[in-house]
Amino acid sequence: MAKDLGLETYKVNLNGRLIQHTKGKSYTFCGAFPPAYNPFVYLDYNNVMRTMDQWAKEIPAEAPWKAPHAAEWDRMSMMEFINNTCWTQTGRRFATIFVNLIVTAETHQISTLWFLWYIKLCGGTTRAFSTENGGQERKFVGGSGQISERIMERLQGRVMLESPVIKIDQSGPCVIVETLNHETFEAKYIISAIPPVLTTKIHFEPELPAIRNQLIQRLPMGSVIKCMVYYKEAFWRKMDICGCMIMEDDDTPIGFTLDDTKPDGTEPAIIGFILSRKATLMTNLTKEERKRKICEYYAKVMGTDEALHPVHYEEKDWSKEQYSGGCYTAYFPPGIMTQYGSVIRKPVGKMYFAGTETATEWSGYMEGAIQAGERAAREIMFQMGLIKEDKIWQTEPESVDVPAIPITTTFWERNLPSAHGLIRFIGYSTFFGMAAAVGAFAYKKGFMTRV
Amino acid sequence: MAKDLGLETYKVNLNGRLIQHTKGKSYTFCGAFPPAYNPFVYLDYNNVMRTMDQWAKEIPAEAPWKAPHAAEWDRMSMMEFINNTCWTQTGRRFATIFVNLIVTAETHQISTLWFLWYIKLCGGTTRAFSTENGGQERKFVGGSGQISERIMERLQGRVMLESPVIKIDQSGPCVIVETLNHETFEAKYIISAIPPVLTTKIHFEPELPAIRNQLIQRLPMGSVIKCMVYYKEAFWRKMDICGCMIMEDDDTPIGFTLDDTKPDGTEPAIIGFILSRKATLMTNLTKEERKRKICEYYAKVMGTDEALHPVHYEEKDWSKEQYSGGCYTAYFPPGIMTQYGSVIRKPVGKMYFAGTETATEWSGYMEGAIQAGERAAREIMFQMGLIKEDKIWQTEPESVDVPAIPITTTFWERNLPSAHGLIRFIGYSTFFGMAAAVGAFAYKKGFMTRV
Repeated sequence: MAKDLGLETYKVNLNGRLIQHTKGKSYTFCGAFPPAYNPFVYLDYNNVMRTMDQWAKEIPAEAPWKAPHAAEWDRMSMMEFINNTCWTQTGRRFATIFVNLIVTAETHQISTLWFLWYIKLCGGTTRAFSTENGGQERKFVGGSGQISERIMERLQGRVMLESPVIKIDQSGPCVIVETLNHETFEAKYIISAIPPVLTTKIHFEPELPAIRNQLIQRLPMGSVIKCMVYYKEAFWRKMDICGCMIMEDDDTPIGFTLDDTKPDGTEPAIIGFILSRKATLMTNLTKEERKRKICEYYAKVMGTDEALHPVHYEEKDWSKEQYSGGCYTAYFPPGIMTQYGSVIRKPVGKMYFAGTETATEWSGYMEGAIQAGERAAREIMFQMGLIKEDKIWQTEPESVDVPAIPITTTFWERNLPSAHGLIRFIGYSTFFGMAAAVGAFAYKKGFMTRV
Repeated sequence: MAKDLGLETYKVNLNGRLIQHTKGKSYTFCGAFPPAYNPFVYLDYNNVMRTMDQWAKEIPAEAPWKAPHAAEWDRMSMMEFINNTCWTQTGRRFATIFVNLIVTAETHQISTLWFLWYIKLCGGTTRAFSTENGGQERKFVGGSGQISERIMERLQGRVMLESPVIKIDQSGPCVIVETLNHETFEAKYIISAIPPVLTTKIHFEPELPAIRNQLIQRLPMGSVIKCMVYYKEAFWRKMDICGCMIMEDDDTPIGFTLDDTKPDGTEPAIIGFILSRKATLMTNLTKEERKRKICEYYAKVMGTDEALHPVHYEEKDWSKEQYSGGCYTAYFPPGIMTQYGSVIRKPVGKMYFAGTETATEWSGYMEGAIQAGERAAREIMFQMGLIKEDKIWQTEPESVDVPAIPITTTFWERNLPSAHGLIRFIGYSTFFGMAAAVGAFAYKKGFMTRV
């Protein structure tokens, strides 16, 4: 679609090392995931990501509530999953920031079934977390807002801005839509492409079916403040640092950063994310206070005072937006997917549901929003007799310009034990080894005799 | 207030035995809680209720987010609490139906911090669960809807019905309130007394503060279908059964019933509650199907075919109501109370918050709604200079006509071990006992000698 609309993408800067900051110390590294020098931590990192990907294989993309273990995994929060899967504090801390970053919510607030489904739809843990060959690889030259703007241009005046819908009336033969500024529109069909929780802003005539009426109360939007700190120059590049920082400690305002310098090298900047509980803690500070705290932390993590002297600061607290509700996307708390989730895309009369939350690929991302919008449009085209039912769901061919390179795992990644497994193995080996030694000793000393 | 409005209450029938139906069998009993013949189950029942009440003591009624263990308990779902506290399946099953009944949600969907706060505000587990001397003791002669109707009469035409608010504009000197039918009202102050999630139906100018904008997405209403089955006569009374049934099995539609016969003996009826996941499962059946399933179950539980022949059936699926959202009340999923809960009553400009969810006594009940409404009114009276600040929060004197009789616990209820504690004790005793026996035997046989 980007190509179709004449938009270009560029790669986020990855020249230089990444930084992991944990327990007050910075470690530089290369690659998608931070390395681990402690073998138990290595096994833990490997095992928790591998377990997520393995479990996710069982979950049907189009109907996660039908997964063989749906009921069990939906009752389990990601905090329980992490506590059950990780064996080291370091492993838990990293898995927690991984969740916070991917879905801007706390591990105890979200369902394991939903989170693993979400990760699956990104193509797995590595794809979701990576910049290169992953979710964060590219941005649009000129900004992603252009996608909506160019579509709007093509629709030649048929898009109404600043017209929130207050009422949808399906009691007559046509659907009547009323906006806050008292305009009304008649339609044969409608598509709701807003986050489910924002549909609570609409008064429905007749009322929504019970399960949908309750589902839309149960899918809150995540919490994040996006913060762009602008500098005179991209000083980190001189230090062989790419600008990507993963910051795990409780006292850091920002959890994750990327270099946000424009592709031509102008406007050197670091974009950082204040995630979940930290967004709630920091929302009542002044903009100036947030900026100062962030710069101080960047200086500490990168080990340079240059970070203390930004030339400009921009931020967006998505939690304040009544017409977004939050950012990036809706999350499913424990127990909601299996009890209410199955109606997520189920039409209500002439109303069909798009929006990234209803996607079966990259749900939560723009990619998912586009897939969902096209599918909802085709559902209506089918109703109107314009296409056959088997054309509603279509798979988009792989992008030629930006192909997703398959993510491979090594033999060791697939087969190494978990930290806990290793400990158990060592325990058994030691036990049997000692038992054998004691037996041999006893036999030799004549404490045991052949019978 | 009931007395003031000239309304009378009557006691729900408790003449006769109650029934507990579990694992396909019915057991009759007297008293608030079902008895347990297995001593481990008895210890489990006693311990889980006692632990809830003990933990709840730590939680401040007016600020549960400030409890010493707030963070820990808020991360924990009630499912985890029950799994950690109960030692027998029977104990877990009863604790689960207890939660389902009290708050119409699943144990894995709700925060332990919130649930224990909720129970505390009812005066504890026994008060919350009991009919006699408890939450279910009384109903209003003529129905509780009269409370609102009589208040409305006193307000002499100043209550607007069927006028949902779509917009609250605080950008000018007055508050402007607009309704769905395009009426506008000007006010100096406003009180929102609807459930928090229903305030998402309102478009705010200016937008709500970030934490409130996100809080109102995170407090879903519970799920329940209330079902009244009417019979020619109250046949259960002839069987020395009072009509209160606690039904725990997965296949029962109804979890809890009470005799709903009018106080003069007319309109013999049983009221039953289809709770939480079961309400979602059964919402798409026809009314006739629900009625049939319910009557069949009543017949099985009470052991009489008379239950199969109702003369009338009424039901209310609260989950369908867009202007209630569900029933009985809002619940807090794990992690919401500590991250967002502290703004629950915090005014936004000239807008103050009542509604039972903001109460500090019997939150979720009519009692809490009244306390909250009066408090919010006094907050505004204080702003207007009509009362002093220390008069905002007032404690209502105990009702003379319907006093709450103190709930006492016995020495054994307070001091018996938990089932797990007993097992541990038996384990240790056995171990030390055996160790002592082996030692004595060894000494006697001369395997050990004094040094």
